[in-house]
Amino acid sequence: QYSTGVRKVTLIPGHGIGPEITVAVQKIFEAAKVPIEWEEVDVTAVRGPDGKFGIPQKAIDSVNANKIGLKGPLMTPVGKGYRSLNLALRKEFDLYANVRPCKSLEGIKTLYDNVDVVTIRENTEGEYSGIEHEIVDGVVQSIKLITEEASTRVAEFAFQFARENKRKKVTAVHKANIMRMSDGLFLRCCRELATKYPDIKFEERYLDTVCLNMVQDPSKFDVLVMPNLYGDIMSDMCSGLVGGLGLTPSGNIGKNGALFESVHGTAPDIAGKDMANPTALLLSAIMMLRHLQLNDHADLVQNACYEVLREGRALTGDLGGTAKCSEFTNAIISKLN
Amino acid sequence: QYSTGVRKVTLIPGHGIGPEITVAVQKIFEAAKVPIEWEEVDVTAVRGPDGKFGIPQKAIDSVNANKIGLKGPLMTPVGKGYRSLNLALRKEFDLYANVRPCKSLEGIKTLYDNVDVVTIRENTEGEYSGIEHEIVDGVVQSIKLITEEASTRVAEFAFQFARENKRKKVTAVHKANIMRMSDGLFLRCCRELATKYPDIKFEERYLDTVCLNMVQDPSKFDVLVMPNLYGDIMSDMCSGLVGGLGLTPSGNIGKNGALFESVHGTAPDIAGKDMANPTALLLSAIMMLRHLQLNDHADLVQNACYEVLREGRALTGDLGGTAKCSEFTNAIISKLN
Ligand SMILES: CC(C)[C@H](C(=O)O)[C@@H](O)C(=O)O
Ligand SMILES: CC(C)[C@H](C(=O)O)[C@@H](O)C(=O)O
Repeated sequence: QYSTGVRKVTLIPGHGIGPEITVAVQKIFEAAKVPIEWEEVDVTAVRGPDGKFGIPQKAIDSVNANKIGLKGPLMTPVGKGYRSLNLALRKEFDLYANVRPCKSLEGIKTLYDNVDVVTIRENTEGEYSGIEHEIVDGVVQSIKLITEEASTRVAEFAFQFARENKRKKVTAVHKANIMRMSDGLFLRCCRELATKYPDIKFEERYLDTVCLNMVQDPSKFDVLVMPNLYGDIMSDMCSGLVGGLGLTPSGNIGKNGALFESVHGTAPDIAGKDMANPTALLLSAIMMLRHLQLNDHADLVQNACYEVLREGRALTGDLGGTAKCSEFTNAIISKLN
Repeated sequence: QYSTGVRKVTLIPGHGIGPEITVAVQKIFEAAKVPIEWEEVDVTAVRGPDGKFGIPQKAIDSVNANKIGLKGPLMTPVGKGYRSLNLALRKEFDLYANVRPCKSLEGIKTLYDNVDVVTIRENTEGEYSGIEHEIVDGVVQSIKLITEEASTRVAEFAFQFARENKRKKVTAVHKANIMRMSDGLFLRCCRELATKYPDIKFEERYLDTVCLNMVQDPSKFDVLVMPNLYGDIMSDMCSGLVGGLGLTPSGNIGKNGALFESVHGTAPDIAGKDMANPTALLLSAIMMLRHLQLNDHADLVQNACYEVLREGRALTGDLGGTAKCSEFTNAIISKLN
C-alpha cells in the first residue's frame, strides 16, 4: 500500500499544546532518520456550505492523497453547528477501527504493573450514529445502529491484529443480554470471525463484568473488540490504569487510510510554555511507523522513549518531573544511537 | 411509609447460593433482634399467558403488599421467551433508582484504600428500553429512551440522597457531546435539580473521563448519577475497586416500594456447600434497615460485620479464608453484644 522510499505523511499539529508536541515528534523522527516527509495541514473548523463547521478541504485532500496522517489534539468550539472534528475525521475517511494499546511503562508508577491490553473499537456507528429524535416534549430517543458490515470488518480487524501481533486472545465485549438484537448482531459477527482464526482464543464477556475484572486484574485480558461507545470508555479506563491519556497512543484505521493521534486534550493552560508531554503523540507516531512497516525505526524510537521514561531523569511536569518538553525530547534524541 | 412495629418484608432467597446466604442474613438479624417478619416467596420463572416467562404472581402480590423486599441472586434461564427476572422486578415495581455504595473495607486488601462512592443509576429506561428493530437484513437499531420524567426523578433522588447522607457532591455522568439530545436532556434535568440543592456541589463529567479518573483516583468522586447503562458499568467498576460484587450492596428504590439485592451471581459451583460469602446480601439488608429507619439495628449489624472482616479470622474462600458461610455468620453474631 505504501511506497518503500520516503513516505509522505499528513501532519495535523492541532491546537493548544498540539504544535509543540508535534515539533517534538518531528525532531525525534529527524534524528532517527525516519524516511518520512511531513505535509502539514491545519484543521481549524471552517464553515461549510450547509452552515455547519467542518474540516477544511485542504486537509481532506491531503489525507486522501497520502492515506496516512498524524494528528495532535483538536479543539472543537462548543455550540450549535459545531461537530467534533475528531469524529468528523473518523467519519470522512471511514476509519472503522480504533486501536488503543495500553501497556504498563517502566518508570511510570501506577497501581498496576501488569497491564498489556489493546482495545479495538468500532469507530463509525453504534451509539455514535448521531440519529436522535424528540418524540414528544420531554421524550427523546437516540439510535444505536449496528450493522453486520461494520461489525464484521472490525471483528476481522481485531483477529487479524491479534495474529499479526502474536496476541493470544480476543475478547468481544457486549451487553447482548440487554441489547439482544444490536449487540447480539455484533457478537454473532465476532463469533463468525473467530471460527476463521483458530489460532486465536476467543471469549465473550459482558461490558460490566469486563469493567469489574479489568480494575481487579488486567492480566486477564489481551485484545478486546467492541462497539463504539464501549470502546470509548474501555480505552479511557485502560489508559487510566497505565498513567492516562498523556501516555497512551491511538490509531484510527480504515481501508483507505489511517490516522494516528494522541487522544488527550489541548491543555490550553500550559500551551506554548514548553511544558507538555509529547509521549502519547510520539507513541502514536511509532504505531504509525509500524503501520508503514518501518519497524526498525519504530523499535529505535520506542526503545529510546522507554529508556528515558524508565530512567526518570527528564520527565515533564505531568509525570512529577521538572523537565521541559524540549528537554524530554532531547533526552530521547540522545538515546538514539 | 412504614409501620413502627414489626415490619413485614418480602424475602426472595433466589437460586444457587441464594438460600444459604439468605439464611445467614436471617440468623444475624434474629440475633440482632431486628423487628422484621419475613414473608418468603419464590421467583423461579413461570410461563405467563403470553407464553413468556416472568415473575410468579404470588411474589408480585407480596412485594406490592409489603412494599419492601430483600432478594438473593436469580437465575434467568437463557433462551427465547425468557426475560431477565432481575430486570422484570425493577420494571414491575417501577424501582427507578438503583443505589450502589462502594466503600473500601478494612481488612479487604485491594489496590485502592480510599474509595467511598455511591452510584445512582436510572433504572427504568435508557439503553434498557428493550426497543429494537432490524431495519433491513444486517442492520439493527436499538433505542435509547430518555425522558424528562425519569431523568428528573432520579436526579432528585440523587440530590436528596446526598443531602440525607451528608454527602458533598453529585456528579452527573454523561456523553452529551455525542448523544446531544438524549444525554443532553438527562443533563439538563440534573442541572435543574442542582439549583434546588445549593448545599450540594454539582459537577458534570463525561463517562469516559469518569472511568479514567475513577481508576486513577476514586477520591475525586462522591455521589454519581447517570443513565441506566452507564450506571450498570460504573457500579460494577466501582465494586471492583473495593473487592467485587461479593462485598457491595445494592438497593432499587421506587415511589411505592424498594428491593434490596446482592448483585453477584448464583455461583452454582459452590451452591449448597456452605462456602458462599453472604456479605453483599447482608450489606444490602443493612441498607434496607436504614431505608426502614431502623438505623440502630443497621449500625449494630454493620459494625459487627465490619469487625469480622477487619479481624480476618473468619473469612470465606473468596476472601482468601477457609471459614464456612455458617462460621462467618456465627462470627458476626458473636460480635453483636
Ligand atoms: C472527543 C470525543 C468526541 C471522543 C469520543 O467520544 O470518541 C473521545 O472521547 C475519544 O475517545 O476519542
Ligand atoms: C443481570 C443484568 C441484566 C443486570 C443489568 O445489566 O442491569 C446486572 O448486570 C446488574 O447490574 O444488575
